[in-house]
Amino acid sequence: MTQIRTIAILGGGLIGASWAALFLSRGLAVRLADPSENAANDARQRIQAAWPHLAQLSDIPDAPPWDALFITQDIAEACAGTDFVQECGPDRLAVKHAMLAKAEPALAPTTPIASSTSSLMASEIAQDAQYPQRILVAHPMNPPHLVPLVELVPGSATDQQTLDTAFDFYQSLDRVPILVKKERRGHLANRLTSALYREAVNIVAEGIASVEDVDRAIANGPGLRWALMGPHLIYHLGGGAGGYRAYLDHLGPTQEARWADLGAPRLDAATVETLVQGLEEELKNLDPTRLTQARDDALVALAKLKKQAGL
Amino acid sequence: MTQIRTIAILGGGLIGASWAALFLSRGLAVRLADPSENAANDARQRIQAAWPHLAQLSDIPDAPPWDALFITQDIAEACAGTDFVQECGPDRLAVKHAMLAKAEPALAPTTPIASSTSSLMASEIAQDAQYPQRILVAHPMNPPHLVPLVELVPGSATDQQTLDTAFDFYQSLDRVPILVKKERRGHLANRLTSALYREAVNIVAEGIASVEDVDRAIANGPGLRWALMGPHLIYHLGGGAGGYRAYLDHLGPTQEARWADLGAPRLDAATVETLVQGLEEELKNLDPTRLTQARDDALVALAKLKKQAGL
Repeated sequence: MTQIRTIAILGGGLIGASWAALFLSRGLAVRLADPSENAANDARQRIQAAWPHLAQLSDIPDAPPWDALFITQDIAEACAGTDFVQECGPDRLAVKHAMLAKAEPALAPTTPIASSTSSLMASEIAQDAQYPQRILVAHPMNPPHLVPLVELVPGSATDQQTLDTAFDFYQSLDRVPILVKKERRGHLANRLTSALYREAVNIVAEGIASVEDVDRAIANGPGLRWALMGPHLIYHLGGGAGGYRAYLDHLGPTQEARWADLGAPRLDAATVETLVQGLEEELKNLDPTRLTQARDDALVALAKLKKQAGL
Repeated sequence: MTQIRTIAILGGGLIGASWAALFLSRGLAVRLADPSENAANDARQRIQAAWPHLAQLSDIPDAPPWDALFITQDIAEACAGTDFVQECGPDRLAVKHAMLAKAEPALAPTTPIASSTSSLMASEIAQDAQYPQRILVAHPMNPPHLVPLVELVPGSATDQQTLDTAFDFYQSLDRVPILVKKERRGHLANRLTSALYREAVNIVAEGIASVEDVDRAIANGPGLRWALMGPHLIYHLGGGAGGYRAYLDHLGPTQEARWADLGAPRLDAATVETLVQGLEEELKNLDPTRLTQARDDALVALAKLKKQAGL
């Protein structure tokens, strides 16, 4: 595998800046392209804000190495001489195609282009590409510098070398790359979050519990275990000495009975009102100005905790 | 509210012993009934094992106050003179009814009987009761001494005083009691876990990703956030300055499109084989003998972390 030293980031919003902070913290050079006037300032502020968290997770310089960051409004200029492209543009297919048309001529034919898209497929993004075999989806969770998961989804043309290079690259940055074997709506993680969310909406819509109580139940109940283990492993432990097979034999029918009773809500105007009003009630007991910071602080502490626990 | 000083625990298995450890750690007296010969020894071992974890979370005696624990095979004897009953028997209605028939004559008419049941309803459990108004569901997540959520679900006959007493009691023990307003299969939390699990099974059954990768995705992705916040609040933050309404306006349609694409798997023999084999692959990269201990250690650390973060 080619040594990856310089990365082009296309799109300098929340996700692009978070990736930039991560890459810079690991000694990589970053060339960031964004068409907006404020992009350079905004990106630098976000990188600066991310730095203390990154410093708690690994041994990095005291301040961001600004010399290793080049910001331009020109995609071709950002791509010149880079070994890997992290595309973070808006999730609209026409925009992605226009970005690729500018990027590809400035890149070597085998340089991977990894899209951070949450809703598009690599096959769609690559459909007019010059070299579709080097295009894949590499979808992070927000914020990418603190949440390790990166979902890798190949398109129909993506070659194995591109996948291997991307997998090794993210792993070298202490990310957790996961190979998603089929292109499906929501990739993998957002299918799971949507499944949970559907019932979280249904419970409120049916009047079983309030928005606040649904949220408190998750964060003080099953969410604690999900930070440590996925659902299959949790039920394996729930099966005692007999493990997962014993769990499925004894309690599989209970699961199926619950599945049959789950709701299928719509996000119609009335439901949206109920949810928004419920959320406003919930915010009364919280400090909204501190929530994002508290979450990010806690995500850093959680990463350290999991490392110690070996989970 | 009557001061609760002495609690009867009916059923000394995993859940009963975990409740006992929690109650003893807070200076309460416990009278535990279990028909099996080994129950007393097993319960004492489990309480002993839970103690170091409880000691990390609050200021408690160096060793369990064994004098405050009375163990008997007789339900009526366990109930005598108690202020609150935590029922932890098998989840079979006939068994619950038989237990209540022995318990009620030994209790004052207003003493709450809280069932730890995960699958039965308070209305069913109370149907032949002498005083159905003091019966409710108080369902914990495993292990109850480390996971704070307690779901309170009234039956059709449960009175407000019983609910209030139970709510205040669990809150006084630093639990997070949640009021579930309707009796539904799975109460609240297990409806949410089942919704997530359904898609976790579907993703494996459809060949989108392996059992191990589904578990790793959760525990390194969305699970990290769910330990800190519920899904409604997470999407509120995802809406930026416009909050939850902006999220729902802009991305509600994306959620509905994902909901429409989620799977409806069956836990048939072939799927069970696929899941069990996948879990066996996952275990090769883990130390199965340490998993429960690692989980419990991490849950303790997580509880401390959340307290510090104010989440």
